[in-house]
Amino acid sequence: MANSRYVHGYTAREFDRLSDQANTLSELLHYDTVFVSDTRVLECGCGTGAQTVFLASQNPRSQIVSVDTSAISLEQARRRIRAAGYRNVEFLNADILELPFDDGCFDHVFLCFVLEHLASSATALNAVKQVLRPGGTIMVIEGDHGSWYSYPQTPESSQTVQCLVDIQAKLGGDSLIGRRLYPLLSAVGFQDVRVSPRMVYVDHSHPDLVEGFSKNTFIAMVEGIHDQAISLGLIDQWTWEKGIADLYRATESDGTFCYTFFKATGTR
Amino acid sequence: MANSRYVHGYTAREFDRLSDQANTLSELLHYDTVFVSDTRVLECGCGTGAQTVFLASQNPRSQIVSVDTSAISLEQARRRIRAAGYRNVEFLNADILELPFDDGCFDHVFLCFVLEHLASSATALNAVKQVLRPGGTIMVIEGDHGSWYSYPQTPESSQTVQCLVDIQAKLGGDSLIGRRLYPLLSAVGFQDVRVSPRMVYVDHSHPDLVEGFSKNTFIAMVEGIHDQAISLGLIDQWTWEKGIADLYRATESDGTFCYTFFKATGTR
Repeated sequence: MANSRYVHGYTAREFDRLSDQANTLSELLHYDTVFVSDTRVLECGCGTGAQTVFLASQNPRSQIVSVDTSAISLEQARRRIRAAGYRNVEFLNADILELPFDDGCFDHVFLCFVLEHLASSATALNAVKQVLRPGGTIMVIEGDHGSWYSYPQTPESSQTVQCLVDIQAKLGGDSLIGRRLYPLLSAVGFQDVRVSPRMVYVDHSHPDLVEGFSKNTFIAMVEGIHDQAISLGLIDQWTWEKGIADLYRATESDGTFCYTFFKATGTR
Repeated sequence: MANSRYVHGYTAREFDRLSDQANTLSELLHYDTVFVSDTRVLECGCGTGAQTVFLASQNPRSQIVSVDTSAISLEQARRRIRAAGYRNVEFLNADILELPFDDGCFDHVFLCFVLEHLASSATALNAVKQVLRPGGTIMVIEGDHGSWYSYPQTPESSQTVQCLVDIQAKLGGDSLIGRRLYPLLSAVGFQDVRVSPRMVYVDHSHPDLVEGFSKNTFIAMVEGIHDQAISLGLIDQWTWEKGIADLYRATESDGTFCYTFFKATGTR
């Protein structure tokens, strides 16, 4: 996951977006991010630590090792965890494909919003399987941009979202990976694979989700790829602007917004 | 809802399909289809009674009146309810737009897979609101064909599903209505509207859903509109056949299938 190939970039707005996303979705995604006490947990691709705080708070008696390829992100993650007062996380600059650990030395592996960015998610899963002890478990959380729909929805709003899918594909990733977790984990040889979809449904009876999810997580993520989408010729400026306006239209009082995350578990 | 305008038709296979669908989805859709005891419940558009059995079994101490415009369907519904041994349902041949009831004479109104078929769902909702007492509640369940996606998914499989959306639209209905329930009920003046999405996620760890939902409910529904899709020129025979084969492909051991129903409640 070299920096230039990370679709969302490393800006301050993106730091805030990831934090908004994590806080809004923490209950939905992490209420069951809980491991047996006194175990060793590896988090791969921790980024700026937006998910690490939940991992640490939900598992105060586990030893967590969080790795990422970006030294800058790791420093932000370190600061975030220190500010939150957790002392059970160790950070390490490492690539998921070249993990500096002995075989079978972790009880659990956790990956959140990582596989979608990788050219070969199967190779990565094989690498993390290696450092898991037999009987240890993997937990993977991913989104699926093809699961988005809204009311109202227009060809232009669909097209802006499709830009995200296309750019991720050009970078070698797969933003439709959520629906694919079951076959992916099964093919790598994980046993007892279970996938639990976590749907976010937003209407105006949930004003916190209108702001925290529809606007500040999803639409912000789409807006973040404007320059790439235009320069790659995936969309013209007029269509882009109408598409973004139409996405915001679906956050008004008579609009609705749907998106689904997928959480998978499996056993080595 | 004149017979010729009902997209799914009135065949024996369709009777079976509706039964398979109802049985497979009963827990997901109806675990909370429960009203206060000793109340009067109106079911609009009961069809062959596929949902009526759950309404009756979950509410044994309520008096249920189920109406439909098709006398043939009503007779099948009557037989089904009699065979199941329920005695708390009365059937009546009536149109939702011309309900033969006094204003405010029901405590609850229940509609399942009805609004998607109507040219004016708002008019229908106004009509049922009229026969609800002030403080009475409405419960609406609808699908949303735009919520379907699968792995793998191909342009052809998407196109066959789109035929269903297009045909429903030509008949004056809206098979993307699930996402629209919140604004629809709100606009008619229902209070405290709450929408609960019910997502069906299918992979091979759920073989019952592969058969009962993906194949016998969803793909069977798509296959049922073959003649209309071809004769309306919405798709050619080659694309249709590939699309259907691709839908079945997603039911194989490495495939996944997603669809979301929406259940809404509101108070008069």
